[in-house]
Amino acid sequence: MSGRFRSECRRIIFQSTRWDEKGFDVVLILAILLSVALVMWESVPSISPETRQVLYILEWVITGLFTLEYIFRLYVSEKPIKYARSFFGVVDLLAILPTYADLLLPGAHYLMLLRVLRVLRIFRVLKLAKYIGEANTLLRAMRSSARKIAVFVFGVLILVLILGSLMYLIEGAEHGFTSIPKSVYWAIVTLTTVGYGDISPQTPMGQFFASVIMIIGYGIIAVPTAIVTAEMTNPRLADSGSDPVCPACGWENHDHDATFCKVCGDKLPEPSSPTAGIDAMSK
Amino acid sequence: MSGRFRSECRRIIFQSTRWDEKGFDVVLILAILLSVALVMWESVPSISPETRQVLYILEWVITGLFTLEYIFRLYVSEKPIKYARSFFGVVDLLAILPTYADLLLPGAHYLMLLRVLRVLRIFRVLKLAKYIGEANTLLRAMRSSARKIAVFVFGVLILVLILGSLMYLIEGAEHGFTSIPKSVYWAIVTLTTVGYGDISPQTPMGQFFASVIMIIGYGIIAVPTAIVTAEMTNPRLADSGSDPVCPACGWENHDHDATFCKVCGDKLPEPSSPTAGIDAMSK
Amino acid sequence: MSGRFRSECRRIIFQSTRWDEKGFDVVLILAILLSVALVMWESVPSISPETRQVLYILEWVITGLFTLEYIFRLYVSEKPIKYARSFFGVVDLLAILPTYADLLLPGAHYLMLLRVLRVLRIFRVLKLAKYIGEANTLLRAMRSSARKIAVFVFGVLILVLILGSLMYLIEGAEHGFTSIPKSVYWAIVTLTTVGYGDISPQTPMGQFFASVIMIIGYGIIAVPTAIVTAEMTNPRLADSGSDPVCPACGWENHDHDATFCKVCGDKLPEPSSPTAGIDAMSK
Amino acid sequence: MSGRFRSECRRIIFQSTRWDEKGFDVVLILAILLSVALVMWESVPSISPETRQVLYILEWVITGLFTLEYIFRLYVSEKPIKYARSFFGVVDLLAILPTYADLLLPGAHYLMLLRVLRVLRIFRVLKLAKYIGEANTLLRAMRSSARKIAVFVFGVLILVLILGSLMYLIEGAEHGFTSIPKSVYWAIVTLTTVGYGDISPQTPMGQFFASVIMIIGYGIIAVPTAIVTAEMTNPRLADSGSDPVCPACGWENHDHDATFCKVCGDKLPEPSSPTAGIDAMSK
Repeated sequence: MSGRFRSECRRIIFQSTRWDEKGFDVVLILAILLSVALVMWESVPSISPETRQVLYILEWVITGLFTLEYIFRLYVSEKPIKYARSFFGVVDLLAILPTYADLLLPGAHYLMLLRVLRVLRIFRVLKLAKYIGEANTLLRAMRSSARKIAVFVFGVLILVLILGSLMYLIEGAEHGFTSIPKSVYWAIVTLTTVGYGDISPQTPMGQFFASVIMIIGYGIIAVPTAIVTAEMTNPRLADSGSDPVCPACGWENHDHDATFCKVCGDKLPEPSSPTAGIDAMSK
Repeated sequence: MSGRFRSECRRIIFQSTRWDEKGFDVVLILAILLSVALVMWESVPSISPETRQVLYILEWVITGLFTLEYIFRLYVSEKPIKYARSFFGVVDLLAILPTYADLLLPGAHYLMLLRVLRVLRIFRVLKLAKYIGEANTLLRAMRSSARKIAVFVFGVLILVLILGSLMYLIEGAEHGFTSIPKSVYWAIVTLTTVGYGDISPQTPMGQFFASVIMIIGYGIIAVPTAIVTAEMTNPRLADSGSDPVCPACGWENHDHDATFCKVCGDKLPEPSSPTAGIDAMSK
Repeated sequence: MSGRFRSECRRIIFQSTRWDEKGFDVVLILAILLSVALVMWESVPSISPETRQVLYILEWVITGLFTLEYIFRLYVSEKPIKYARSFFGVVDLLAILPTYADLLLPGAHYLMLLRVLRVLRIFRVLKLAKYIGEANTLLRAMRSSARKIAVFVFGVLILVLILGSLMYLIEGAEHGFTSIPKSVYWAIVTLTTVGYGDISPQTPMGQFFASVIMIIGYGIIAVPTAIVTAEMTNPRLADSGSDPVCPACGWENHDHDATFCKVCGDKLPEPSSPTAGIDAMSK
Repeated sequence: MSGRFRSECRRIIFQSTRWDEKGFDVVLILAILLSVALVMWESVPSISPETRQVLYILEWVITGLFTLEYIFRLYVSEKPIKYARSFFGVVDLLAILPTYADLLLPGAHYLMLLRVLRVLRIFRVLKLAKYIGEANTLLRAMRSSARKIAVFVFGVLILVLILGSLMYLIEGAEHGFTSIPKSVYWAIVTLTTVGYGDISPQTPMGQFFASVIMIIGYGIIAVPTAIVTAEMTNPRLADSGSDPVCPACGWENHDHDATFCKVCGDKLPEPSSPTAGIDAMSK
């Protein structure tokens, strides 16, 4: 009886593929968004003591709910230890621990910022959304071009190191380029076209050299875009992947949400890949 | 007789596909552009009282013309109520109401800014231009990649939330990062490579961390580009879509502006998709 | 005899496809670059009177040479009037007129800036370079996507108009948003991710709204890239175009610099398209 | 005996394709990164004399090790002169010379910055990594689109020259546009969307004109991206290139790291192209 209740609960909070079971998820998403908004709001220095009081109470209500949810999840898990040590298990714990820690150790106020990680909990709920198919295409495109992007980023790092050192030589400390690390920071700000303007070249020679860096940056910003685009327009990526393959007849072109093979009617395997990227995090 | 006159008027101002009927559209475009220029010009604080007087008179002339046009459109419509409640009906009303409201309630000057929405009226006229085919290809590419872009934007929002909170911890209020919302604002300014420089990291640790954010931003700016490019180079998008299909012979490769099938001469259906994006707004 | 001398000269300065005739072009390119450098250098306020004297003399030497070249081109042209009224004929005249005008009308010093247009003369010389094939691919890709880009730019203009007006309402004159045109200028600076920081939102509401604009800008920067990329990866563009077609046998796959058909040996027509973009300017 | 020892050493430090020989490379990479970190750290003005002392000692340890390595490489090379004059031979020498030069000529402190070029040594080690295949795809895509990018950059330079001169005329020296070179610098900062804000237009006319430049920059940033993407999605690039072709049976689809043909078992030729880009530098 208890086992059946637990397995039922487990199905609702861990899987909930049916629309009538989504109520729990919607409440959870709203609670997560509220809790993150609370953390952000609390950090604003100009709020009145009364508002701060309300935020404080709301914080404890949220923490209470999340604590209940955490205990409940531990209870319904088949392997509580495995859940507690999974990615989302740790995130769930980090969502409640700081508030209790703040009560016990009033000095450790910076720990409270850990609560912003609550936003990660939203990924758990989104696992259920249809959007995950799209997210997965993006993740796969990024993963398959990860090595090319790593090579590119590495090349950019060497480039900004050399350019920054040269600029330190050209402009010098009197124009804000006080050290090589700071010059490299400036080179990154310039090459990525962010351009704060907190440090900017003053000498004609420095401005000429900065112009060269900008033109280079303008040219090579094309490279990561080209890499990811080439991956996403790759037919291999579009053909295979997230769609399940029928184990009986081998038919591949099923829709993302198909449960049975449309050719032979055999049951399809769980579509593991659509959520593979996020499942991997919880192991 | 009156019905015929109305249907003739209706044809001119609502459809006007023939070139000799475009005169009305050209006058309307010029009036819209002038009216928007008036709103912008009026807001400049340094204009002389004489100029302001001229602008005031011009404003009433424009409002008068637009009022006449609105009444006329109501008159010629088959279903005036439906027109008045459509997207463009509301825009047409918003184009004239603020000027009258300013006369009645002199305090509500901010309402005058609603007049800038007059610029939306230009879409109505452009519905007729040949450019709409191009606009539609763009709209379709954007619509078919909307879910991927939504997932991407959602991921970016979570990223800036975590990065901004970290930066609030690293830099603190004394360097301009006075609250988490402000730090998140800074993270968005940095990640999108806008880089105002109103808030910028001062500590070496903060500058190192900002460099990491910029490199990330440089890398992931590729993602939306890759998404839309993959959609636009998609053969499905190029082959099907805005071209009408002949109901008699099934021939598909008609030009955008074809009215009759070039194979069997049968009348083609209204090319609904070229203006679907904009038609949808007026329903 | 004179006619033959003129036609020989014409061949050298107008066509010069043979390598041994490129000497004239190289001298011309160097003279053009020097003349543009002179214009830029002269504008620097901190140069000494001696340097200014040297620049003045060099300016007259350059002007003298360009005047001789202009007269020479008029002389060797078959139709001098047509040359004088062509794009490059006007540019050639604008390259020398300001210096003489400065002698006659000392007040009209701003006319001197027209000399910077000398840089356009370099296109004439580059017509001969092999790079023109590449430039032409770019020009064709841009021209064939011009209408899509026009629609996109038009949409962006309407967007910045509405966003700028909203921001004028939110922030107001006390935070630098003194008028709608200025707010629209700020919206363009933000949406294009330039981000000077001369005007930046101060209120929380304004910063939130600016964040939304930046995320939009981040998303739609993908659109022009996608348009041009879709054009450049278009097989139609790669297959046809700059290669000449043999009028005798119809064979198309000739190299860019082929003079005779490689199938039947017939003389190929002048490869008009590789320089079509620039030829069009001189007509 | 000595010859055999030398050839064994040569194999370890120049080739080291076997995993058990990678130890030398790992130590070398760590030493290079440490040496570059030292150069950057030394330039920070706020470090204490004690730390500076430690850095000084570490610098000499690193220099000693690099000197030993340089001598060792000279010793094991078959053609020491050729090594010394190769790209990496010069970099290896530049990595140690400045420290000795600083001892002999204490005035030439700026020479010390040459040591930052040590970072280039990392490319030698990376030649061995599997990443080189990816780097090569990138290099090939960039090389095959180099001419198009050169044409584009040249066009951008002419554009910023004309736009900068116009802006010098419009804004003038009183708003920071003190000379044409400075205005051109501003035009580059704006067109590449860097936007420092050290110079920004003040007059309405200048702001309008700057808006036009930004919209242009927004449009043409698409061009280099489109060029490189078109190259990277080019099937020619994907099909041929880095994969070795079996000389016996002509089979092409081997993996990057294959040593024997998977069809006929014949030995494959050395995969020259994967490292061609970097090999070319050392010749």
